Amino acid sequence: MTYASIADFEGALASLAAPDAAAIAAAEARQAQLTKPPGSLARLEDIAVFFAGWQGRERPCIENGRVVVFAGNHGVAARGVSAFPADVTAQMVANFAAGGAAINALADAAGLELQVVPIALDRPTEDFTHAPAMSEAECLEALSIGAAVVTPELDLLAVGEMGIGNSTAAAALCARSFGGRARSWAGPGTGLAPAGMERKIAIIESALAFHANGPGSAFETLRRLGGREIVAIAGAVLAARRQRIPVLLDGFISSSALAPLAATNPAITAHCLAGHCSTEPGHRRLLDRLNLVPLLQLGMRLGEGSGAAVAAQVIRSALAAHARMATFAEAGIAGAR
Amino acid sequence: MTYASIADFEGALASLAAPDAAAIAAAEARQAQLTKPPGSLARLEDIAVFFAGWQGRERPCIENGRVVVFAGNHGVAARGVSAFPADVTAQMVANFAAGGAAINALADAAGLELQVVPIALDRPTEDFTHAPAMSEAECLEALSIGAAVVTPELDLLAVGEMGIGNSTAAAALCARSFGGRARSWAGPGTGLAPAGMERKIAIIESALAFHANGPGSAFETLRRLGGREIVAIAGAVLAARRQRIPVLLDGFISSSALAPLAATNPAITAHCLAGHCSTEPGHRRLLDRLNLVPLLQLGMRLGEGSGAAVAAQVIRSALAAHARMATFAEAGIAGAR
Repeated sequence: MTYASIADFEGALASLAAPDAAAIAAAEARQAQLTKPPGSLARLEDIAVFFAGWQGRERPCIENGRVVVFAGNHGVAARGVSAFPADVTAQMVANFAAGGAAINALADAAGLELQVVPIALDRPTEDFTHAPAMSEAECLEALSIGAAVVTPELDLLAVGEMGIGNSTAAAALCARSFGGRARSWAGPGTGLAPAGMERKIAIIESALAFHANGPGSAFETLRRLGGREIVAIAGAVLAARRQRIPVLLDGFISSSALAPLAATNPAITAHCLAGHCSTEPGHRRLLDRLNLVPLLQLGMRLGEGSGAAVAAQVIRSALAAHARMATFAEAGIAGAR
Repeated sequence: MTYASIADFEGALASLAAPDAAAIAAAEARQAQLTKPPGSLARLEDIAVFFAGWQGRERPCIENGRVVVFAGNHGVAARGVSAFPADVTAQMVANFAAGGAAINALADAAGLELQVVPIALDRPTEDFTHAPAMSEAECLEALSIGAAVVTPELDLLAVGEMGIGNSTAAAALCARSFGGRARSWAGPGTGLAPAGMERKIAIIESALAFHANGPGSAFETLRRLGGREIVAIAGAVLAARRQRIPVLLDGFISSSALAPLAATNPAITAHCLAGHCSTEPGHRRLLDRLNLVPLLQLGMRLGEGSGAAVAAQVIRSALAAHARMATFAEAGIAGAR
C-alpha cells in the first residue's frame, strides 16, 4: 500500500483493525488447560494470546518473521548532536549489507529475515530548528516506503533504525506529541558527553519553539521533526495493523515513531510489543505513554533492531510453550486443589 | 565426581576454580573493536565476556547446553504448604518424560538438551519441623547425584527443579543462611491463597526454631532444611565450578540451593548467571545476597528450569553478536569522534 495523500494516512490512523476475538478466546482457553499452575508462565502466556489475536489462530507461530532496518540522514546531525559523524549512517548500511553488524548476528540467532531499507541517505532532512525536516511529498514518500515492506506472508514485523542524529529527532517527536521539556525526553544516545547533551537539549528546545505554532496533527509532527527512517517506521506499523501483522518495536527511536500516532489515536499500539527498554532516559516515559511494557531491559542502547531481535527469542519461547505443552487431561495430572 | 564425605563437600566449596583471565582479556579486547558504540550492547557484552572466562576461549559458544530438572518429594508437603498435592511431583516427572511440560517446549526452543533426574520420589524427606530433612548419607547421596550430571562436554548447565512443597524448603534455607524472618522469604509459590501463606510462614518459623541450635555449616543447613532436588542442584553447581562450566539458575528454588553455599563462600556464584527473577517475593532479595542480576523478569513462577531456558535464548543472542560481528577495521567504519 502507499499513502498517496495526507487524507490516506489520516484515514488509516482513524480506522484501526481489531484482533481476532475468537482466536484470543481459544488461546486463553488453551492456556487454562496446560500443565502448569494457572498464570505461572505470566508474560509468556500474554504473548501467546496476543499473537493468537493478531495472527487469527489458536496456536500462533513465527515462520516468516522479519526485522526491517530503515536508515536515514538528518540535517540536524550537522549541529553536532551525536558522538558519531553523519557518514556513519551509510557506513553502517554497508556493514548491514556485508553481514557484519550486531543486527545481522542477532536476527540470524532469532531466525528472522533481515531487510535493510536506506532512504535517500544522500539527501539529509532539513535542519528542523529552522524548517520542517521534510516536505509533504517527502513525508508521504517515507510513509509509503515503510508501508511497502509489509508483505502479507509476514507473521512478525520487527522495526529497527539507523541514522546518526536520530535520537535528537526522537526526543523532539516525543516532546511535541506528549508535552514536556526537551530535557525530560533527551538522552546521551550512542554516547554523547555531558557538554554535548546540553547542546542537544538546546537544539531540541529551539526546534520545538520554531514549530510551536504549526498544526499539531500526527502527520505534521512527523513531517516537521521526524527523519525519513522514523517516518517509514510509522508507515510500516500502520500498514501492519491493516494486515493484522504483529509488530515488535526496538528502542527509543523506533518507539518514537509511534508517539505522534498515539497522541492522535492511542489504540495504534495495540498490535505492538515493546522488545526492549533502553537506558535512554526518555524511553521508559515513552513506553508508558504508549501503554507498552518492555519484554527486556538489558541496558542496550544500539538501535538497528537489536533489542527487538533479542526479544523475538522470548516470543519464540512463549509460542513454543503455548503450542506444544500438554493439557492436564492429556497428561493425567491433578489440578490445583 | 561424588561427595564421599562432608569433608569432600567442604573442601570443594573452600577451593573454587577461577575463570580464564586471558580469555576474558581477549574477549574484552574484541568487544572494544566491534562495530557499535562502546558498551552499547551492555548486558550482552557482559554475558559474552563471562562465557569467555568460564569456557576459556575468546569466542565462547553453546553447542552442548543442557537443562537438568531435579525432582524430589518433601515431608513438609503433608502439612498443606502447596496449592497442589504431593502426587503431582511424580505426575510432572511423567509429563517431562512424555514431552508435555513447559520445559520440554522451552528447552527445545533454546536448543538445550533436557535431562530429568527424579530422586527417590517414593521416599519424601522428613518433615523438617521436627527432624532434619535428610540423614548425612542421604544428603551426600543427593549432592553426588547432582554432581554426576556434570559431564565434561557441557558448555552450559541450566538447573531446574520440581517438588511439591519445595518453595517452603527454599524459604527456610534462605532464612537460615542469610537471616531474616520466614515472612521476608516466603511467598505464594505456585499459587497458595493468603490463609495458606500464613500456615506456610508458621511452619517455616517452627522449622527455623527447631534447628536453631544445630551447626550452621552449609552442609548442615542443606541437610536439615533442603530437599533432595535442591541439594542435588547445590552438588551440580559445585561440580560445574570445578570443571569451569557456566551455570544458569532458574527461579527462587534453584537459586535457594546456593544460599547455604554462598553464606560460607560468596565466590560460589561467580560462574552462575540468574536466568529470571520470579514474582516470588524472596527471589529478588536472594539474588541480591547471591550478587546476581537476573537476565529476565517476565513474572514467571513455574520452576522446572523454565526461566533459565528462556534466558538461554538471550545468551545465544549475546554469544552470536560477540562471535560474528565485524570490527571497525574490518568494516571500514569511523569510530566515535
